[in-house]
This record gives sequence, structure tokens and C-alpha cells, in this order.
Amino acid sequence: MSLPDALDTLTSLLGNRLVTSGSDLANHARSESHFPDAAPEAVAYPETTEEVSRIMAACHAHGVPVTGWGAGSSLEAQSQPIHGGLVVDFSRMNRLLEVRPEDMDATLQPGLTREELNTELRATGLFFPVDPGANASLGGMAMTRASGTTTVRYGSMRDNVLALEVVLADGRVIRTGTRARKSSAGYDLTALMLGSEGTLGLVTEMTVRLHPQPEAISAGITSFESLTGAVETVMETIQSGIPMARIEFADAAVARAFNGYANAGMEEKPHLMVEFHGAPEQVRADAERFAEIVQDNGGSPFRWSDRPEERRALWDMRHKGYYAILASRPGSRALITDICVPISRLAEAVEETQEDLATASIPGPILGHVGDGNFHAILLVDPDRPEDLAEAQALSGRMVERALRLGGTSTGEHGVGLGKLAYMQAEHGEAWDVMGTLKAALDPTGILNPGKLVP
Amino acid sequence: MSLPDALDTLTSLLGNRLVTSGSDLANHARSESHFPDAAPEAVAYPETTEEVSRIMAACHAHGVPVTGWGAGSSLEAQSQPIHGGLVVDFSRMNRLLEVRPEDMDATLQPGLTREELNTELRATGLFFPVDPGANASLGGMAMTRASGTTTVRYGSMRDNVLALEVVLADGRVIRTGTRARKSSAGYDLTALMLGSEGTLGLVTEMTVRLHPQPEAISAGITSFESLTGAVETVMETIQSGIPMARIEFADAAVARAFNGYANAGMEEKPHLMVEFHGAPEQVRADAERFAEIVQDNGGSPFRWSDRPEERRALWDMRHKGYYAILASRPGSRALITDICVPISRLAEAVEETQEDLATASIPGPILGHVGDGNFHAILLVDPDRPEDLAEAQALSGRMVERALRLGGTSTGEHGVGLGKLAYMQAEHGEAWDVMGTLKAALDPTGILNPGKLVP
Repeated sequence: MSLPDALDTLTSLLGNRLVTSGSDLANHARSESHFPDAAPEAVAYPETTEEVSRIMAACHAHGVPVTGWGAGSSLEAQSQPIHGGLVVDFSRMNRLLEVRPEDMDATLQPGLTREELNTELRATGLFFPVDPGANASLGGMAMTRASGTTTVRYGSMRDNVLALEVVLADGRVIRTGTRARKSSAGYDLTALMLGSEGTLGLVTEMTVRLHPQPEAISAGITSFESLTGAVETVMETIQSGIPMARIEFADAAVARAFNGYANAGMEEKPHLMVEFHGAPEQVRADAERFAEIVQDNGGSPFRWSDRPEERRALWDMRHKGYYAILASRPGSRALITDICVPISRLAEAVEETQEDLATASIPGPILGHVGDGNFHAILLVDPDRPEDLAEAQALSGRMVERALRLGGTSTGEHGVGLGKLAYMQAEHGEAWDVMGTLKAALDPTGILNPGKLVP
Repeated sequence: MSLPDALDTLTSLLGNRLVTSGSDLANHARSESHFPDAAPEAVAYPETTEEVSRIMAACHAHGVPVTGWGAGSSLEAQSQPIHGGLVVDFSRMNRLLEVRPEDMDATLQPGLTREELNTELRATGLFFPVDPGANASLGGMAMTRASGTTTVRYGSMRDNVLALEVVLADGRVIRTGTRARKSSAGYDLTALMLGSEGTLGLVTEMTVRLHPQPEAISAGITSFESLTGAVETVMETIQSGIPMARIEFADAAVARAFNGYANAGMEEKPHLMVEFHGAPEQVRADAERFAEIVQDNGGSPFRWSDRPEERRALWDMRHKGYYAILASRPGSRALITDICVPISRLAEAVEETQEDLATASIPGPILGHVGDGNFHAILLVDPDRPEDLAEAQALSGRMVERALRLGGTSTGEHGVGLGKLAYMQAEHGEAWDVMGTLKAALDPTGILNPGKLVP
């Protein structure tokens, strides 16, 4: 039972939208970070739910592994077909189907990217807030339960997906959730699918929540002598009920990387970058109250602005952080850690990590979504030095142990994929077996993204 | 295989905390609304997770039905043991285990009620916002995915539960989620358990999110000639980004009931009651901007206040709505409908329902959480007239059809239980079968709350 047995069915269904050779296979073999390539045997480009359903029925009948593919921007190799078989590429299912401004929601196909969605929304006065940095597909973001810089204010994909259409392993098509803002009608299958990384089904349609574009935005940056002052500032701000739209942390090593990459002129100290959304008088008041908290905690004078060009410059820099860090060690690839802890343990988690990094032979600048307790050490490895990768993996493993000891999680937003699979037993215990039970119930022959997420 | 076979084990485990006769059985037979009594064969009062685990292991071995019981305030008979067997009453597992103000979370046992929690939190400056009206147990609220008047601002149980400890059908104990604010580490078992109505496991511990007590609150009331003006007001307010903490609708029949019950002196028109939380200058600004939107939509001058006593009087009235309505037809019981629709369809849904009610022989005043698109017709039936109940059920069925046609759900917050079971196939289609598959995978012998929620 393998792909050749299903080829006739798939070819008659898709014609030249089923590709079995050439650069398409190589393009779907790669990952965004350090994982080795793994090519599929074929790539399908469906255009309708009906086609996806028939693809799954054929692969189910013939035991062919199926891995979904959005923009290929996942950081833990979720979309790499490590058991070969078929990749289902959603790039031809990328339409915005309907926007309903009066309900502040939109229905769309999974191949649409978040930047494409926000471009189309520009005239409506609404926007989709989840921002993982990369221009990911919305289907991929759903499947990793993605979040990012604005999650502290607007939530993650968990909070911003209302309903899904999903094709199951055997080709059945189900709809989960409704456009109502809440429901108590049975098991929350939408939430079960979000973050399932294509192991329970393929998403073919989604309804997402939209938010009003803020009337005004203020943003600014400040530095601290130590991390503790920065984290105390964030905790006090949250407890004061000041609604931060973004609150990002960068350590001294990141400041150094920004300086090298873009001549940023930053002091080599821990920094906070923050943004407020609201009415004009409100975002000014928020920035001023935040400035007082910064001062109480020994930060540098909080420089803020509500002018769009200054704000854009700040976040452009933040969004280029990954590339600035990569450029600080030319030719390197990254192993990106992603732990998330209760915010009261964040200073401890970052400090212990910095101490561990201080004795390491590879660099690991730290960036974080500090309002969520989530941070990343970007561990830079020379692809020609296997000992670098081994050291990065050992550092990453110790970070996960630290996160679990402090009541947190191995992955705040990047997902499990291949990189975090080894930690699932430690994080979930018996609950990981329950995940395996659910997977077996919905995909008894194990064709959906095999080798990922479950035992 | 039934309870008598498990009795020895249960008695040696629990001693006199296992009750097999007397008023305890009758007390656990009743429901809050119109459903007939259904008594268990025994009631267990565990004090620890370990005891709950052993109870489940014994019941699993002997095929004994097990139904969880919190405060008994569910409205759809979720906690009624319709197949007899054992009720597990969590009233002795009602401790607040830990409050962590710095992380704004708390860990507690499921028998604690929401009012008890908020009383204990008073000195911390924090509160737990989910407010279904009744003084429900937090475990029960988790299991029905409860929400209520503050959901428009603070979310439902789905948004406010971070982690659970759950005893599975076979007695295994799992932990789902962490105290981190977000995670992408595998299937969201916390969300799967929330709203599962005790059919997948029994919750023995929960970690919930807390929120800062608002520095200031403003609240007020206004009336409209027609429902449309009220709903337009709500939509425009949401779209303006004015953060309402509560926004409640009451129709003319409810105003009449308030007048009869408490001499409220309300005009017999549709009303909106609204509340804003924030800094003092902010809640005044919110109320003033809201007042302008009310005026634009033809509402009566918006009377608002930031004085606690006036605000309390307003919400006391709202919270007594159910009793005021029951009192308007002495001796009656209620069938409470609970549909939720996209907010743009709310006026249509309420108006069609009012037209339907106008030709009915039983009254059905309408109250709603208008910011969520959720409303309840309180259908008053004379318990001695079976034709009343039949008429109420027919009205309720037409309301559900209407909700589904408009893109909504049969139950916004009360859950499925017995009252909405008949509509699950229509609402979910094939996804309901998937719920059955998941149930069978986690509870293969079907002992957890049998007869509820799944096919």
C-alpha cells in the first residue's frame, strides 16, 4: 500500500495539478530552520474541498501518508513529509470568500496568507491581529495554534478562529463551530483541530474574527540595567489593566545584533518595545502611565511616539530580529527555542538560560513576547559542525526542562513538529497517551502527517 | 454489572461518604428547570483526586454509570443521573488551593462556587469574571463551558480556564494545559474537556485566569421604540472599539415582569443595560460615547452613573430577571431557550421569535446577552398542563431552526444536557458522529454521564 497504488485515481482527479517529479518535490522537502530535507513522492494542488475529500479518500484506501502544506514557514518542520507520500499544497485554495464587517468576521480558504488577508481588509476598517512574524498561511497558523507579538492584547489563533471546515482522514467533510460568538453545543472540535498540525484532518475553510483597526497607536522603546526591571514593568502594567497591544523583550545580545545589522544605535542592554491601541487620548494616557511604571523600575526614559513612521521603524526592526541575529554569524542556521512560562517566572527562566548560554560555544540571543511569558533563544549553529547542533539541542532540552519546572510549556507558539516531539512525554505525561488515543480514533490507519505530534 | 457489584469497594473507600438511601438521593434527582426527577442509586462525596480515581476505577470495572454533580444549577439537566448509578458530588472538594496575584491565576477544586471564589479574592484586587447568574460550582461551569453577562468583555470559561486535572473513565488521572498563558504543545485537551458535560472525564482541579478589579465602573440603562435601534447601538459600539463589560437586552415583556415583581417603573419597551470597566476618566468617556450612539439610534436619553449603589440596583434587577419572569405566572416552571446567532442577525432572530410567541398560548419574555448574540426566551409552562410543555418544546425547536438558519447555535451557554440533545444532529451533521467517536475512544464502556451529549 503506497502512493503508486493511488496514482491513477489522483491523476484522473487532478490532471497536471498532481506533480510527481522535478523541483516541486524539492520545494516541499525543505524546512525554515535546521531540519534536513525530506521530499514527498508527489504534490497535489487541490482547488476545492471536494477535491481534498477525494484525495483523502484515495490515500485512505491505499495507505498513503498525507502532509498538508501552507506557506512552508513553520519552524519545527511540521509540513515536512518525513514518511514521503503526498503533500497537499493549499496555495490554489487561497481565496477570501466573504467579509462581514457588521459581524467582524471573515470566511476564507486556508492558503490565504495573513498579509494578503490584511491587505484585502484595509478598506473595511478591520484587521486580523495574529502576527507570527512570517507571512504564514492562515491554514498553517490554525494548525500550529500560532500567536505572536499582538497576542497579549488580541489572543492567539485559539481565540480568533470561530469555525472550520475539515476533511478527515477517510475523506469525510465536517464543519466545526458556527459564526456565533460562543456556543456550549458539545465538544469544541474547533479547538481540538487548532494546533493539531495536520494529524487529525486537513482544514479547507476557516471563519476568523476580525478587530477594529485602532483609531490611534502609540509605541516606544526603553532599556533596563537588568532583566528584572523589565519583567517587573510588564507585570505591573498588566496588573494595572493598561491594555498593551504588543510588549516585546530583546536582550543585550539582540541589541548588539541590531546594531551590527542596521546600525540601530541601541545600548547593549535589555530592551522593551511596547505599543498601545485605542482612541488618541487613550493611547497617550496609556503611554504616560507606562512611562511612570518604567521609571519606578529603573528603566531609561521611555521614548514614545504616535507618529506612524517612527512606529513602523521600531517594528520593522523587531520583525527583522531573526535575520539580524542570523547575520551576526554568517552562514549559520538556527535552532529556535520557544518556551513559555508564567510571567512571574520569566526573569528566572531568561536569567538561567543566559547563564547556561554564557558557558556555551554557540551564541543564542534572546527575543520574547514578554506579556505572554514566551521567549526564544535563537541558537546559531554552523551547518558544517554537527557538534554545534548537538550543543544547541542540549541547550534547548535544558530550556524545556526549565520551562516545565517553572509551570510552563516547551512551545508557546511554534508547535511540536519534529523539534519538540522528544519533550511531549515530559510535558504531558499520561495526557500524551490520550492524544494518541484521539489520533487513533480519528485516523486509525495513521496516514495524516505520520511521525508528528503523537506517541 | 451494576452498582451493587461496586458497593463493597466504594464503601470501604469512602465509608459514610457513600450514601445509598434517604434524602440525598432525592436531592440529586432534581433539575433546575422542567425535567422530571431521576434519582441515582448512590451518591459519593470524595475529598481527593485519589478517591475520585478509585471511584472511577471501581465503576469502570463494574460498568456503573457515573454522573458528576457541582451545585445542581445546570439548566439542561446535565447533572441528572438518568441511567441511575452513582452521582459524584464535589461539594467536599471546594477549596481554593492557591492564588498567584503576580500571574493573575488561581488553582482550585471544582466544588468551589464562583461567588465563594470572588469573596476569597476580594482583598487581592483581582476577580473571576465569568458570571452565569446562578452561584454555580466552577467545575460545573467548566463542564458546560459557561458564560454570561460579562462574556462580551472577559470571555467565557473557554477563555478563562488555563489547565485542568481530569480523572478519566478508567480512573487514570491526567493534567491538561499549564500555567503559561499560551501553548502550541499538542492537542488542546483543556478545550476538549470544557463543555464535555462530564461525558469524557471528571474535573478534579482547575487553574483559572483572574482579572484586575476595575478601578472604576459606569453603568446605565436606556430604552428603544424597537429592537432594531437597540441592536444597531450594540453593533456600532463594538465596531467603535468601546469596550463594554456587560450589555444586556430585555424586551417589553421583561420590563412588564420587572414592574410587576419589583415596581421597577420601566417603560414597557425594549431596554439595554450596559456597564463599562476601566480608569475613572475612561469609563466616563465610554459612557458618553455610548450615549451618543444611543441617541443616533433613537434610544431614550442614556441614564448612567458611576455610583456603586445605583449600579448595584441595576444589576440586582437584571439578575432577578428569571425570578421576576417566573413570578409573572405563579406556579409555573420554565423551559429556557438559549440560541446564539451572529450579531447582525440578532434583531431578525428576536423579532421572528416574538412573532412566533405572539400567537402562542404561553408567555415567553426575552432576555439576552446582546453583545454575544445570545438570548433566552423564558417559556412559562404550567406543570399540570402537558400541552404547555409540548407547545414550549415546539417553540424552542423553531428557535433552534432559526438560529441554525442564521449561522448560529442551539445553545450559547446553557449546554446540551437533555434539552438540546435532539438538535445536535441538525447543528453538527457528521461532526456529531466525530464527537461520538471521541467519546467512545475515551470512555469505551460508556459509563460517564450516559444518555447525554453524544449520539
